Amino acid sequence: MITVISSTNRNNALSLQIAEYYLQLLKEKGADCQLLDLRDLPVDFIETALYDNKGNNPEFNVFQDKILKSEKLVFIIPEYNGSFPGVLKAFIDGLAFPKSFKGKKAAVVGISAGDQGAALAMSHLVDILNYLGVHVLAKRPRLPNADNEFEDGTFSNPRYDQRLRQQVEELLVF
Amino acid sequence: MITVISSTNRNNALSLQIAEYYLQLLKEKGADCQLLDLRDLPVDFIETALYDNKGNNPEFNVFQDKILKSEKLVFIIPEYNGSFPGVLKAFIDGLAFPKSFKGKKAAVVGISAGDQGAALAMSHLVDILNYLGVHVLAKRPRLPNADNEFEDGTFSNPRYDQRLRQQVEELLVF
Amino acid sequence: MITVISSTNRNNALSLQIAEYYLQLLKEKGADCQLLDLRDLPVDFIETALYDNKGNNPEFNVFQDKILKSEKLVFIIPEYNGSFPGVLKAFIDGLAFPKSFKGKKAAVVGISAGDQGAALAMSHLVDILNYLGVHVLAKRPRLPNADNEFEDGTFSNPRYDQRLRQQVEELLVF
Amino acid sequence: MITVISSTNRNNALSLQIAEYYLQLLKEKGADCQLLDLRDLPVDFIETALYDNKGNNPEFNVFQDKILKSEKLVFIIPEYNGSFPGVLKAFIDGLAFPKSFKGKKAAVVGISAGDQGAALAMSHLVDILNYLGVHVLAKRPRLPNADNEFEDGTFSNPRYDQRLRQQVEELLVF
Repeated sequence: MITVISSTNRNNALSLQIAEYYLQLLKEKGADCQLLDLRDLPVDFIETALYDNKGNNPEFNVFQDKILKSEKLVFIIPEYNGSFPGVLKAFIDGLAFPKSFKGKKAAVVGISAGDQGAALAMSHLVDILNYLGVHVLAKRPRLPNADNEFEDGTFSNPRYDQRLRQQVEELLVF
Repeated sequence: MITVISSTNRNNALSLQIAEYYLQLLKEKGADCQLLDLRDLPVDFIETALYDNKGNNPEFNVFQDKILKSEKLVFIIPEYNGSFPGVLKAFIDGLAFPKSFKGKKAAVVGISAGDQGAALAMSHLVDILNYLGVHVLAKRPRLPNADNEFEDGTFSNPRYDQRLRQQVEELLVF
Repeated sequence: MITVISSTNRNNALSLQIAEYYLQLLKEKGADCQLLDLRDLPVDFIETALYDNKGNNPEFNVFQDKILKSEKLVFIIPEYNGSFPGVLKAFIDGLAFPKSFKGKKAAVVGISAGDQGAALAMSHLVDILNYLGVHVLAKRPRLPNADNEFEDGTFSNPRYDQRLRQQVEELLVF
Repeated sequence: MITVISSTNRNNALSLQIAEYYLQLLKEKGADCQLLDLRDLPVDFIETALYDNKGNNPEFNVFQDKILKSEKLVFIIPEYNGSFPGVLKAFIDGLAFPKSFKGKKAAVVGISAGDQGAALAMSHLVDILNYLGVHVLAKRPRLPNADNEFEDGTFSNPRYDQRLRQQVEELLVF
């Protein structure tokens, strides 16, 4: 099972649309895959699902179970304040360790409204994933100015489309 | 005003004790300073104080006001999963930009139960702070195995104490 | 004294041209400044000026002296292989520590032929500079696709010009 | 072929001793492996083997050929000035791209005289390797204060020995 994570809880996020597009690409290849949308996290999970409360929030545990069932994770990462959304790391902080992560494989995709393309966000997340025992695919596609390159559920910029398709090919054999 | 931030919402965190010790060091030097304890954040702030709801949560705004009044920020950073707590970044994501940050000065302190001393956590946070326009003091004290080196409100390890005292001296003239 | 470092030893590097432009901006503001061009490093300095041979190469010592006389350093950094040129770090490895660095101020500028703008290169260098005790200006201008935006000794892209002029203003009062 | 790289050109480096120990561990497992000692690089390679001179230095090409023949690379990285030695990156800058790197696998080991264990050095190198298309094993063993933990060609600290043996196991099936 490959889980594609829309890494923000913001409404109307481009990340979610790109996550859905990524799922399509995976399905075209016949991969077993599912979406994980951080917008659906319980709004108080930083209190009710972290630290001493790990495992106690049934709504959060739905997310936990999806992660446990996954062999591979794909993080669609919007750039917020020069890195990834804090909510993504708080979510990771709430997951059981090491069973959620150790020995798994992951891919990261960086999207931004500005022209950096979440390069630092992806670097930070790779450090964290490696720390958790997750092997990360070398290719880290950057999609700067993504707002202008994606519409009606697909990329208007064919190079962006190509970057994701190549990553999908590599992820399937990683 | 110098604000010392205990960068986690976990109960009984060593970060909070070290933040309180840091405040003492600042007060000994006659500095105007205050504590900001992320444990007191509203438990649903990731929904009620971020994105379209920025500025709408009065409890969160107490934090926002403390940041606005600060010229300098000190981040006491515990290492979680190879970086800083997600809650810290979510908190930053909720603050008004650029007025909360631009042109301000900051110092970072890394603490860990393990032997890394939050080196990567501090590197990640410096990237973010620089992105927000915050100048960061070069000295980034690492306090690995901090649980064993701090008790009854003070450092049993005099080298750790020394690292913080030197940073305080430098921060005051930064 | 502010020293502007063209951070590569490659011939015909755009970094050198931009370093020279940066010097002009500093001179317009009346700043005392000088160029340091890594192309002029002795070709065998990794053997004759590092480790046990520190201080033994008179040609390298000319560089060392320029650094010692500087209060502020500006690194014009081309992106090579996802980071800064190895020669830059080898140069740093040959300088006397801590007197070359401790307590000094620095600014970094990232240039690239591709669209990343040396974001990771600057992040890596800031880690190193902070380790050496150098305070780094928050603003890290990125100049992606720089080859297309600079000609005849000046920027054809006014936003790039503006980024450097703003950094110069901030550096002078940092 | 697995190539173990002693990532410095410093004489009497602990990195070289640990690289040799690592080779032993690989040989015990029956792996085909070889050493690459950066001390043997031509002393003027930053001039005679980089940029327009890529491929022109026969001595450097011996290194180039060893890399081309490798499927997996192991970097034994000493911490210099808060990162890896500049010579390592200059070496990488001299190698043919993409054929030296793309699609290969790597592992990193961090050693330091101080207590950081080259955490930042490894983070920086992973960014570079990923940029070059090299997949990096998640486990990044840190060996702080390594001088005190290794003597007569072996680890006096059994935990350090264990860290490398586990990495070897994982690398062989990566």
